[in-house]
This record gives sequence, structure tokens and C-alpha cells, in this order.
Amino acid sequence: MVKTGIVGVSGYSGGVLLEILLKHKDARVTYVSANNTQGKIDDIWPKLKGQSELFCDKFDLKKAVSLCDLVFLAVPHTIAMEITPELLKQGKKVIDISGDYRLPTASVYKKWYGADHKDTSNLKKAVYGLPELYREKIKKADLISNPGCYPTAAILGLSPVVTSFPAGINSIIIDAKSGMSGAGKKAKTQFIFSELNENFYAYKVLNHQHAPEIDLHLGKLEKKTPPVNFVPHLLPVNRGILETIYVHLGEKTGLEKIHSIYKRFYKTESFVRVLEPQKQPQLKDIAGTNFCDIGLEISPNGKLLVITSVIDNLLKGASGQAVQNMNIMLGFKETEGLL
Amino acid sequence: MVKTGIVGVSGYSGGVLLEILLKHKDARVTYVSANNTQGKIDDIWPKLKGQSELFCDKFDLKKAVSLCDLVFLAVPHTIAMEITPELLKQGKKVIDISGDYRLPTASVYKKWYGADHKDTSNLKKAVYGLPELYREKIKKADLISNPGCYPTAAILGLSPVVTSFPAGINSIIIDAKSGMSGAGKKAKTQFIFSELNENFYAYKVLNHQHAPEIDLHLGKLEKKTPPVNFVPHLLPVNRGILETIYVHLGEKTGLEKIHSIYKRFYKTESFVRVLEPQKQPQLKDIAGTNFCDIGLEISPNGKLLVITSVIDNLLKGASGQAVQNMNIMLGFKETEGLL
Amino acid sequence: MVKTGIVGVSGYSGGVLLEILLKHKDARVTYVSANNTQGKIDDIWPKLKGQSELFCDKFDLKKAVSLCDLVFLAVPHTIAMEITPELLKQGKKVIDISGDYRLPTASVYKKWYGADHKDTSNLKKAVYGLPELYREKIKKADLISNPGCYPTAAILGLSPVVTSFPAGINSIIIDAKSGMSGAGKKAKTQFIFSELNENFYAYKVLNHQHAPEIDLHLGKLEKKTPPVNFVPHLLPVNRGILETIYVHLGEKTGLEKIHSIYKRFYKTESFVRVLEPQKQPQLKDIAGTNFCDIGLEISPNGKLLVITSVIDNLLKGASGQAVQNMNIMLGFKETEGLL
Amino acid sequence: MVKTGIVGVSGYSGGVLLEILLKHKDARVTYVSANNTQGKIDDIWPKLKGQSELFCDKFDLKKAVSLCDLVFLAVPHTIAMEITPELLKQGKKVIDISGDYRLPTASVYKKWYGADHKDTSNLKKAVYGLPELYREKIKKADLISNPGCYPTAAILGLSPVVTSFPAGINSIIIDAKSGMSGAGKKAKTQFIFSELNENFYAYKVLNHQHAPEIDLHLGKLEKKTPPVNFVPHLLPVNRGILETIYVHLGEKTGLEKIHSIYKRFYKTESFVRVLEPQKQPQLKDIAGTNFCDIGLEISPNGKLLVITSVIDNLLKGASGQAVQNMNIMLGFKETEGLL
Repeated sequence: MVKTGIVGVSGYSGGVLLEILLKHKDARVTYVSANNTQGKIDDIWPKLKGQSELFCDKFDLKKAVSLCDLVFLAVPHTIAMEITPELLKQGKKVIDISGDYRLPTASVYKKWYGADHKDTSNLKKAVYGLPELYREKIKKADLISNPGCYPTAAILGLSPVVTSFPAGINSIIIDAKSGMSGAGKKAKTQFIFSELNENFYAYKVLNHQHAPEIDLHLGKLEKKTPPVNFVPHLLPVNRGILETIYVHLGEKTGLEKIHSIYKRFYKTESFVRVLEPQKQPQLKDIAGTNFCDIGLEISPNGKLLVITSVIDNLLKGASGQAVQNMNIMLGFKETEGLL
Repeated sequence: MVKTGIVGVSGYSGGVLLEILLKHKDARVTYVSANNTQGKIDDIWPKLKGQSELFCDKFDLKKAVSLCDLVFLAVPHTIAMEITPELLKQGKKVIDISGDYRLPTASVYKKWYGADHKDTSNLKKAVYGLPELYREKIKKADLISNPGCYPTAAILGLSPVVTSFPAGINSIIIDAKSGMSGAGKKAKTQFIFSELNENFYAYKVLNHQHAPEIDLHLGKLEKKTPPVNFVPHLLPVNRGILETIYVHLGEKTGLEKIHSIYKRFYKTESFVRVLEPQKQPQLKDIAGTNFCDIGLEISPNGKLLVITSVIDNLLKGASGQAVQNMNIMLGFKETEGLL
Repeated sequence: MVKTGIVGVSGYSGGVLLEILLKHKDARVTYVSANNTQGKIDDIWPKLKGQSELFCDKFDLKKAVSLCDLVFLAVPHTIAMEITPELLKQGKKVIDISGDYRLPTASVYKKWYGADHKDTSNLKKAVYGLPELYREKIKKADLISNPGCYPTAAILGLSPVVTSFPAGINSIIIDAKSGMSGAGKKAKTQFIFSELNENFYAYKVLNHQHAPEIDLHLGKLEKKTPPVNFVPHLLPVNRGILETIYVHLGEKTGLEKIHSIYKRFYKTESFVRVLEPQKQPQLKDIAGTNFCDIGLEISPNGKLLVITSVIDNLLKGASGQAVQNMNIMLGFKETEGLL
Repeated sequence: MVKTGIVGVSGYSGGVLLEILLKHKDARVTYVSANNTQGKIDDIWPKLKGQSELFCDKFDLKKAVSLCDLVFLAVPHTIAMEITPELLKQGKKVIDISGDYRLPTASVYKKWYGADHKDTSNLKKAVYGLPELYREKIKKADLISNPGCYPTAAILGLSPVVTSFPAGINSIIIDAKSGMSGAGKKAKTQFIFSELNENFYAYKVLNHQHAPEIDLHLGKLEKKTPPVNFVPHLLPVNRGILETIYVHLGEKTGLEKIHSIYKRFYKTESFVRVLEPQKQPQLKDIAGTNFCDIGLEISPNGKLLVITSVIDNLLKGASGQAVQNMNIMLGFKETEGLL
């Protein structure tokens, strides 16, 4: 029974993490904190009323160290890199859900997150927590950098074709649509109900910090790929991401062949479901689950592959994947708490 | 051609007011201001791009006075009563959409709005801008206190039975449901999309500042009524209020009789539509219009009347009614700009 | 390990039931059927892809009898009463989620459901499956009539005050708002997205078939109550019911006293949570759970009690409660599969 | 004052058309019909209660001919081509909102709409009613084929770059998202609220009947373009289409240059608004209007142009554009009824 802590329990990722862990057979939550709210879990998450006696305080390193074996960081970026070094030094395992350890170097981090990186030594050691690509490394890791929501859907959608399509890829366009919980629980006018309901728009067009994260991990696959063109949009739903990915292939191919590449690639995976040809994944079928569903279509001329990849941004795109990583790190059943 | 100003043009009421007035035959908008945003209308309301050359500044009394004949105040409460006296002194007409001039005395105002009233002399002179009850007074008014959104639907729903039902009324319950634009354009965590979408709840139960406003005007009708029991709820839609009003009647009656009382009461009104028996009003049928639609039903024992009253909270519940008041004050066609 | 069948697995209640039972420790689903769709569960419920090998056929009594110990009927009314007698005769236990066994007599059934009752002998034997009132009877039952969604929220909201308030009750008004899954998966123009999104309205005002169901069970409590006045509304959300219940009390009382009556009444219940005074339950806090959350408020004069009661219409209002009933009938842990 | 008829007034396009025409200075509606519903307009469109005395019958050619000068066909495809020849023969003008006259030949029509074309002679004469491209032809037309909703946004978004970019275009991808009113008012299970709310998915991937319509009209512009790759998605909002269009340019260019091409192209147009660089159009800013707003962005390497084009699918995408066409045909002010 591992003792876990959640730093940032008042946010959406923190709350979902708590929900999962309260039902997890091999884990207990022994510590929770948040810097913007304090109080009983009953008051912070009325949904969980009666299910936890935990009290949420401002973050206190000593308490976290003394009460936990493993700490989840569900905090805004720049905060995680302040806490992580100390936790690791004290022999704790850390799963960071923020963006602090996702990019390869301090200078790339600075470019996309606009801040100096304060923990460059751990930046190199952090293991990117996408089990479908890095399971063996995750088993031995002390620090997991949990993938971004958009990159999870994109990398899972693209890895099979990037790895296994013999003729390579000429261009990649990712048209991404995300539910609003992806924007977090922030008091901004632009995020209030009346501004987003019955609305839809693109933002950070070709300029989102998740693009280099996607490029980094696609680049580590066997085949070289051009940088992705990434355009995110805000979708008026609570949960879920759908990415429509357009891949110009190096040579013409058939849907059957592509489909079999995908089936083979994810054959042993518990949380990736490749749909039959002609079927398109729907947000509602993965909302509330840790699954990534993938649909495939090919243009009549056989040269444009259209991949549709869907996940729940708070589960496979954040807290579900974090628990999956914990399960792998600690030798639990990989699906525990998630199925 | 009247020259009008809109103070608080960046809020939802202010924006809708501008939209109406830009198409109004007898009015021009010559001045707009807002204290939280400045800039071109194109940038503040991209919807209106290309339709207005107005530039929005912080409020400047001198400018407002020199440019306008009539000023709409679409500002938060406590702000209106600071501006109004000066505008009136300069001979301007004022239509205040805030709550500042709606309650009868400074002490009642203090109780419900938590602030001292700074303009008690005009408080007495202000005319409550509900044309269906006070048209003659509105014609002669210099200062209109535009009704609250909930009170508009409630008072229109209740006036016929209160006025004309011979045996009187034993109790009134108003179960009100409002779309989110009613909460204004405020950066509060509780109003962000993820907190309200797929959600619904009651708030300020039996304790909302619109209850005394309703009581005040029902109390002026012929028959005495007990204080209303008012329970508002937040509805996950952008626009519209539906109030389900339960009236325990002093003696049993039939639906036909009640229906004819309502038809007669609103016979000459352009913006109140009494539905046929068995029909229920729907939010979608009044959204984007200045109408109030009213449905009627009676319990089998003939002693409980159920009135359903719907309006668009930004039109008949705010800016549409404000323009209707302007039309009456200035002798324009009452429906101009609104049909 | 009990072998269960789900008749009507393609509807919303049937689907949610399957979802719960696939994770239930003490139950297996051995039979599923539907009359409007046949095929693999993967195709009928893509959400459950990969989690069940079941094949769904048209209902076949012999198969159901040979494969199951207990059968859930998630079918439209009038269908359940055709299947039930045979299943009972064969020694099977039945939990009927439809309305067929909820009303006391064939004539009352005829009045509200417009059909002749074909199984009046079992109508008398059926136990109403509301565990908080009838747990002991449920333990011994062979046929459970699972409560309607509206009645569940209403009866749980009203039972404490009806049972324990010494001075009795003068009148009850239930203003109910239900998410759209309550209307089922029916191809009707009035239920398409564009008709309901951004809309809200009352229907079957004072004339809904759930009213006599509520009256029947309130009438069995210690104190007499007047018939309820029940007005349902359609809410543009997927799941959840909120009922705002207005109770005119026989004498004035205080909120503290009422609150303590409710806390005591539900002290040992796992799925009813009485909120602290001043707190209002929200749909989002019970969506996806089997909880009923209850909020309480009292008018300043102490004579009007306002109860707000929320449930997820597909869980505590249908399939969750059905599983809770199964757990009780078969001596499983009452919360198994539901927490 | 032109006398107009609306065939198919009970559908969404027909209803919006009626709404616009009731306020139009130069037109009167003298005839309405629908084949699935008959009755008073008050009952069919409660929103318009009190605004029209029209009675809606099943379509009757003689009546239409005797009462109208111009007939709008807001009917499903295959119906329009049955009615049109007779109306034209009788000297009436026809604006067809269905897809019947949009494709170039009977065989292409058969391929995409699955039906034989019954009026091939008029198919050749029909003028495609996109004023920004074909205004002069529209002036002289008797039969207008009103563009599809997706093609309107796509062609307006692409025309400037296709016409004026010197180095040509290598590939075009259109990722389209449409609000649900685009699917019409059809009683299908897949369109009910609970199936679409909180959901999102792609459909008819690379296989939608609007793709050849887009190709046809892009192909008529100066420069040759490759066939578009068109992927539509269903968006859980009532009204509005956003298309994110990816254009691989023949040579690198800068945003300023592209922006000036677009500004010049639409300089004199009343209903196309090209946004400033860095601004992205939002659905809410064109919902309820006849505008098409266009946003532009270019990749850092200058070779991928991202165009975002938004329209209200029922206005510029259907009935608004139909009225714009009528205004042009009959020499009225082009914006009459639409601004």
C-alpha cells in the first residue's frame, strides 16, 4: 500500500486524481495541499463528501516528505520545478503533471513557457510518462514527467504510422479540439460560461507550447518526421479532446494496410483502442475513461491519411495517465483504478 | 433623432443596447464608455465590427453631457447613483439599468445591496420602467429605473391575477431559472464554463435582492398579496429566464376564467403574449426577442394556479425594455428597434 | 457470483446497468437483449469496446431463463408486465426499472399509463425498491419495482419532514428539473439537439405519471400529507435531476431543528447526504454517482421549508438504485459496484 | 413590394427565412407550405406568434403560382427539382436552398446525392448564388442555386488566395465543424440531445457531398487548385460553422502580403470581414448575422497558410444568403433585411 500525496488538489487534475486514488486498491492518499484554497475535502470537492477525512493545507515540504512515498504534482508550471528537487533528494518518487519537465532543455523551456528553468539536472533525468512508448523506462524512474493532454492524443495517434510506414511522411497537420476543463479552473473573463457556450474558435494557431513536446517524441521514433503544424481550438464541452490529424504519406497506400499497422502496434495495450475501418471515435465514448480511441481513413488517391484520436483530457490526458504511470513504477497491475 | 450615450458598453447589457440602438430609426449613439476596457467598438464587440466608429473611453461626465440627450446606465449598482444626479441636473434624461433606483427607500436599499444610498432625492422621483404597469408615468419621466430581469418576468406573470382575481391570493412561490448572461461578465471561478455547463443549482434561496422589488410593485396593485417566496436557480444556457410561479388562490376557479383575465389584461400590449391553455412557453421562443410569453395551468381542485413566464433576460429583462422605455419617453413608436 | 441478465440493454438505463455490472465483484452479466438493435456490445455501446464478449439478441425467454438467476428489465412500460410473470414462475428474481409495477392498482395504472395491466397478481406482490424506506422488504423480495427517477428524489427529499415533523404539512409543491437522458433514447423531433439546447420549459404541468407514485409512498409514512403538486421541466444537460420542493409547514420551525431531523433520518444511509445549512446541492456533484444530496432552507417566518434534492437520474434514479436493490436482495455489500 | 413564397417553412431554413422576410421592407410573404406539418404559423413557429396570419398547407403548385412572384425552396434535395421546372415555366423566380442545382451534371449529382436528376435542362441554367463571386450573373438569373453551408465558408475563405497568390497552391485541407441546426429538423436517434451534447466527432470523412461543390467553384477561379480534402465534424452548438483551412502554398510568403490580398479582394463586400493579423474569428461573433469572418495565419516557414472562416449556417450558410440573392435579383439594397 503506497502512501501518496497530491499537491494542487483543488484544481481539476488534482480533484480527478483524488477521486481515482480513493478507490485504488494499492494506494492511499495521505497528504493533500493547495495554495489557493484550504479546508476539508468535503468543502473543496463536495462531490467527494463523506469519502475522505483529509484536510487540505498550503504546501508544506516537511509534511509531504514525512507522510508520502510518492507525490503527484498537479500544480501550474514553474511551481513543480521548485518542489521536485527536494522531494527527490528525500528519496520520494515524483509524478509531475505540469509542463516543467516535458521539454528537452532549459532554453526550449524558456522559449515556450517564458520562464527560466530552475532544475536543469532533473530535467535530463525525467522520464516522459507515456507508457505505450516508454514503459520500460517508467518502471525504473523516480521522476515522471506526465505528458500534456494534446501530446498524448497526438503521439498515440501518430506513433504507428511514423514508426512503421516504410515510405515516410511528408507533412503533418494536427487540428485539435479540446473541452474546457483543459483550460483549468481559472477566474478569467474569457473562460466564463457566456463566453464559451455556443462558441468555438482557434487559439495559439501554430504557436502552442505542446507542439515542441509532440515533435520531441515523434523525433525519437525510428523514422524522421517534419515538425507538426498544430492548431488547437476550444470546444464547448467539459471533458475530452479530439484531434483530426492529416498526414501526407511518402507514397500511396491502402486503408487495410494502415489499419493492420495500428492494430499490431497497440495489440498488447490496455488503453488504446483502434477502431474498425469506417468507424469514427466519439468524445462521449471515452469521456470518463482512460482510453484513447483511434479512427483511420485514407483519401481516394491513397496519399492522405486522416487519423482521429480522442482522449479524456483529465484522464488519459492527465490524472488517469499519472495513475497508470504510478502503477507501472510500483509494479501494480497497470489498469488498477482505471478500469 | 435623439442622441444617446451608453455608460458601461463593455458589459452584456451595454453591448445588447448598442446592438439595438445601431439599428434604431430615431436614435443615434453618440457616446459610449466603460471603466474596465477602452478601445474601438470593433475590438470590444467583434460582433459589431464595421458597424460603428465609436471609441470607448473611461466615463467622462462632461463628454457625456455635451454629446447626449439621454444616457443609459449599464453599470454595476452603486455606480449609477454617483452619475445620475449630475446628468439630471444638466437636463439629461437617464435610464438606469442597475438596481440603484429600484427599491423604495435608502434603508431597504442598504439591507439588500449592502451600501448606503447616495441619491435619496432622486430615489423618490425615479419611475419604475415597466411599461405594462406604468406607461403614463414613463411618458413624463426624466429618470427611469429599469426593472430587474427576475422582477420583469414575475410582475408580468402575476399582475393580472393579483389585480383581477376577486377572492385574492393566499401565497406565492416563484421558482426562477436564469441563463448565465444574467450573472454578467465577471471573472469569477464559479462562473467559468466547466463549473456551470452540465450543472444546475439554486442560490440565494429566499434571500435574493429581487424579491423586495417584486413585492413593492405587486403591493401597488389593487389587491393585497402576501410577500413572494423567491428561489432563483442558474441554468446552463446563455440567455433567458423562466419562472414557474405557484399561486394559492383564495377560492377555486377554472382555467378558462383565469385565461380570459390574462388575455384581457394584456390585450393592447405589444410585448406580452398569453399562450392558449395547455401550451407552455419555451425559452427558445423568446430568446433574442423583447417578448414575455405566459403559460397558465390550474390544479384539478382549482385552487393552485401555475403561471410560467419567460423573457430574454438581456432584452425584456434589461436592454430591450430600456429601449422600450426610451421609445415611450420620447414619443417614438413603442416597438421601434424591438420588432 | 450471481448470473444476471439485462433486457433492454440498448437504452440508457440498460447501458449504464451493463457498465456497473461489468465491474461488480459479485455479479456477472450472462445475458443481454434488445428489441430495436442486435449485435455485439462493442457496436451498441462503443464506450464499452473490448470489455464484454456479449452478443445482444431480441428477447428470448428460454435463453434468459436458462442463463440467469436475476433479470433486470430496462424496457418501456407495458413490456415489463408481459415478461415478468414467466420469469417469476421459473424461479428467477426480477428487478423492473419500468413503471409497470409502481402504482397500486390496475385502474390507477390505466389512468396514468393508458394501458390495461396484464399482471395484477404480481402488481400486489412487487416491492418498491427504495432501500431507504423499504430495505427489509427488499431483502425478501422476488420482484422489485424500481422507483421512478422523479419519485426517488422527491420521496427521499420529503420523507424526513413528513415522518418526523410533529405539526404536519399543509401543502407540497415539487418543481422538478430533469436532464435529457431521462427522456430515453427516442427518435422524436422534439428531443433533437437543436430543439433542447439553449432551451428550457415545463411539461405535463400538474399531470405527470410520477405524481401518484410519490403520493402513494408519502402516504405510507406516519403522517398524512396532501397530494403533491408536481411540475417537471426539461433541463439542457445530459444527466441529473434537481427538485426544489416547497413545503408549507403546520407550524413555524427553525432550520436547525429541520436539519437535525434530516441528519438523524439518514444517519446510517450510504447514499443520502444531507448538506450543512446554507449549502445548496449541485447537479455536478452527484452526476455519475449513486448519491442523493439534500439541501434545506427555511423562510424567515419559519413556515415554508425549501428542500432541494438532487440525484443522477440514470444512477440513483434508475440503474444505480437497481444494483443497490440487487445487492440487498442477495446479501451483497449494499454499496458494491456503486462507490 | 415582391410577393414571396416559402416552400418548406417548417424546417430550420424555412423558419429563419420567414423571420427575415417578415421584417423586410421590400418583400411580403404571401404563401407558405410544408409537407410534414400544417397549421397556423403561430403553432409551427411559436417564436413568431402574433407576427403573421399565414396558414401553412401542403404544397399546392397552383396556389404558389397565383400568389407569388418569387419562391424560396427550403425543401430536402430531390423535392426541389420536381417543383422548379413548373414554377419557372409560369414565369416565377426561384431560389433553391437545397442541393438539387449545385452540381454541374446529372451524373455528378447521382454520385453524391444518390438520385437521378429530373431537371437537367435547368441544372445548366441555374446560377450559383454566391454574390461575392457571381453577383452579375445573379442579377439576371431566374433560378438561383443557393450554396451549401460548408461551401459558402470554404469558397469565401479560399477564393482570394486561389485567385491572387502567384505561385499557386499544392494542397488544401478543410477541417470543418458545424453546429447541429445544419443537420435539419429530423427525428433520428443519432441527433437527439443526449447523443450530441458533450460530444464531438467527425463524419463522412473525405466523403461529403459538399466537397465536389467546393471544387467546382474553386476550379472556376483563375488559378488551378488540387481537389480539397474535406472533413466535417458535428459541434454541440445550435448555430455556426467554423472551417480551419490548411493551404500548402507553392512558395513561401508573409502574413502581411496574404492579409492585403484578402482585404483587397473583399474591399467592397458588405458581408465578409477580414480580421486583422493575430485575430481569430469566433462563432459567437457571427451567430445571428449574415457575416463571414475570416482569420489568417502563416507558419514560421511561410509555406502553410491557415485560414479560419466562420458563418452562421442558417444565415450566410442558407436563408440569409438566399435573401441577399433575392435583393440582388430584384434590385433591392443588397443588405436589406440582413443588417
